[in-house]
Amino acid sequence: MHITIDFGGTNIKIGLIEEGKLAAKTAIPAYSEQGLSPRLPAVEQAVKTLFEETGATLENCRGVGLALPGIVDADRRQLLSIPEKYKDAVGFDFGGWVEKVFGLPFIMENDARAALIGEVVHGAARGCRDAIMVIFGTGIGTAAMMEGKVVRGRHYQAGILGGHLTTDIHGEACTCGNTGCLEAQASHWALRARAGRYPGFADSVLAEDSLGYEDVIQAAQRLEDWAVRLVESLIEHWSAGIVNLIHAYDPETVILSGGLMKSADHILPQVTKRILASAWTPWGIPRFVVAADPETSVLLGLSHLLSCR
Amino acid sequence: MHITIDFGGTNIKIGLIEEGKLAAKTAIPAYSEQGLSPRLPAVEQAVKTLFEETGATLENCRGVGLALPGIVDADRRQLLSIPEKYKDAVGFDFGGWVEKVFGLPFIMENDARAALIGEVVHGAARGCRDAIMVIFGTGIGTAAMMEGKVVRGRHYQAGILGGHLTTDIHGEACTCGNTGCLEAQASHWALRARAGRYPGFADSVLAEDSLGYEDVIQAAQRLEDWAVRLVESLIEHWSAGIVNLIHAYDPETVILSGGLMKSADHILPQVTKRILASAWTPWGIPRFVVAADPETSVLLGLSHLLSCR
Repeated sequence: MHITIDFGGTNIKIGLIEEGKLAAKTAIPAYSEQGLSPRLPAVEQAVKTLFEETGATLENCRGVGLALPGIVDADRRQLLSIPEKYKDAVGFDFGGWVEKVFGLPFIMENDARAALIGEVVHGAARGCRDAIMVIFGTGIGTAAMMEGKVVRGRHYQAGILGGHLTTDIHGEACTCGNTGCLEAQASHWALRARAGRYPGFADSVLAEDSLGYEDVIQAAQRLEDWAVRLVESLIEHWSAGIVNLIHAYDPETVILSGGLMKSADHILPQVTKRILASAWTPWGIPRFVVAADPETSVLLGLSHLLSCR
Repeated sequence: MHITIDFGGTNIKIGLIEEGKLAAKTAIPAYSEQGLSPRLPAVEQAVKTLFEETGATLENCRGVGLALPGIVDADRRQLLSIPEKYKDAVGFDFGGWVEKVFGLPFIMENDARAALIGEVVHGAARGCRDAIMVIFGTGIGTAAMMEGKVVRGRHYQAGILGGHLTTDIHGEACTCGNTGCLEAQASHWALRARAGRYPGFADSVLAEDSLGYEDVIQAAQRLEDWAVRLVESLIEHWSAGIVNLIHAYDPETVILSGGLMKSADHILPQVTKRILASAWTPWGIPRFVVAADPETSVLLGLSHLLSCR
């Protein structure tokens, strides 16, 4: 059995995985803007509760897998860089914490890479050797697999910065320091700033609330002018961002995941149509799949990495 | 000894390589808009002339290396796709031609990949295992090496389409079918269309001529307003395009090559400054090098690939 923990920006998801299957899982709020350390006692408690519920014990467990957003050194098992959230996690001694609390071997990986592995080993892209993953969450996480190997790169950055390829050189400033990144143009966190640039948004009922993908899409379906124009622009950016990744990594399969996929029926036909009209793929047509079980693919990916140790 | 042939858009370069050193070389005009087949007799003749000049014979040769722009299937040794030039080369029986003319084993590779290999094995990035190459020629050719391995991808497209990552979603139509590609915004072939969008260009002495990188840079140095604004925009795009490749492939070294590098002293400080301000590289600062011998790096790379067979 493996203990797997996915430190997301909004929730921390915790799962017990037995032979590639989820035995039990739970989630606790992340409060990631307050840092990582304050949440670790709650994580420890949540694992204990899962043990109690399932009758499992630490003695049944062979390892711990941790997923974090940001750039993860999978060899030294450190977090190298993360914008905005879990500020204290860079340089944090994850090894010391795992040793003290669990006394088990552990691995660490970027969350999108773990999700890609989960989808390729157990999910929507089973058996695929050349794939990219795009996760439309608070930010836009990505990962790539080429010729059966997860793309990591010299400094663990390759594949995971697809949200930080510029699609609009005249666009918004990104939290990463670059300009006009896909993530700054078309992620959840960017929606409010983007919406604010369209006349009419200030008068919308949505102007006072937090703004999610579904809010904007529904406002466009109600034909609110600012939302119609924003959704049109978002579709352009999502498509261009995915074309960039297809051109960069030459995948056969594009795995889409994250909150935006709740609107997949409405959005995907438009996005894939634009991608297929723009991408240079003389070999044929990439396959688009929606993640089978986005909530657990990170956890299953971590468990697979533990099995491969 | 290896016979190496680089089918460029403007010139076909031909070299005899002996133990990783250029023994002799020549070049003939490509007339690539007229296709490949009409030029093959002249290529054959040029090789014969090199033999006569050096005293070498076919018996001294162990293989033939061919480089082409476009997407090259290095296993089946076919050209899969190419925009604009050498139209008849897609599907052409290179194996039949090499067998008939030389009767030697042969390899084929994309020209930018061969150049990257040449620079890593013999040139400006010697010994480097993680590098990207950007060649500012008629178009913008790119290639990538990750962890010591040339990036090819499932369909031979990976790494070489860096000129076809979108940097401006609202930009120019590209010959590849995409919009706002780096190449459509900031390559040699794009200069005339880009320049034409600035008021004042139509009155410039350059409006009637073909327009090269140096022409535009010199006009900017003469403070012609259209050129000042165009060069500012070009620098933005070159920088954003290279940041995209740094984010995609995580290199330690960025190798720059092509006609634009004649203006490297003027351009490079501005481009690298922008890149370093924008790229997310918490590990440190990428190294920028200008190709040592761009004219022969493709030929040396082909010879290395022949040696590795």
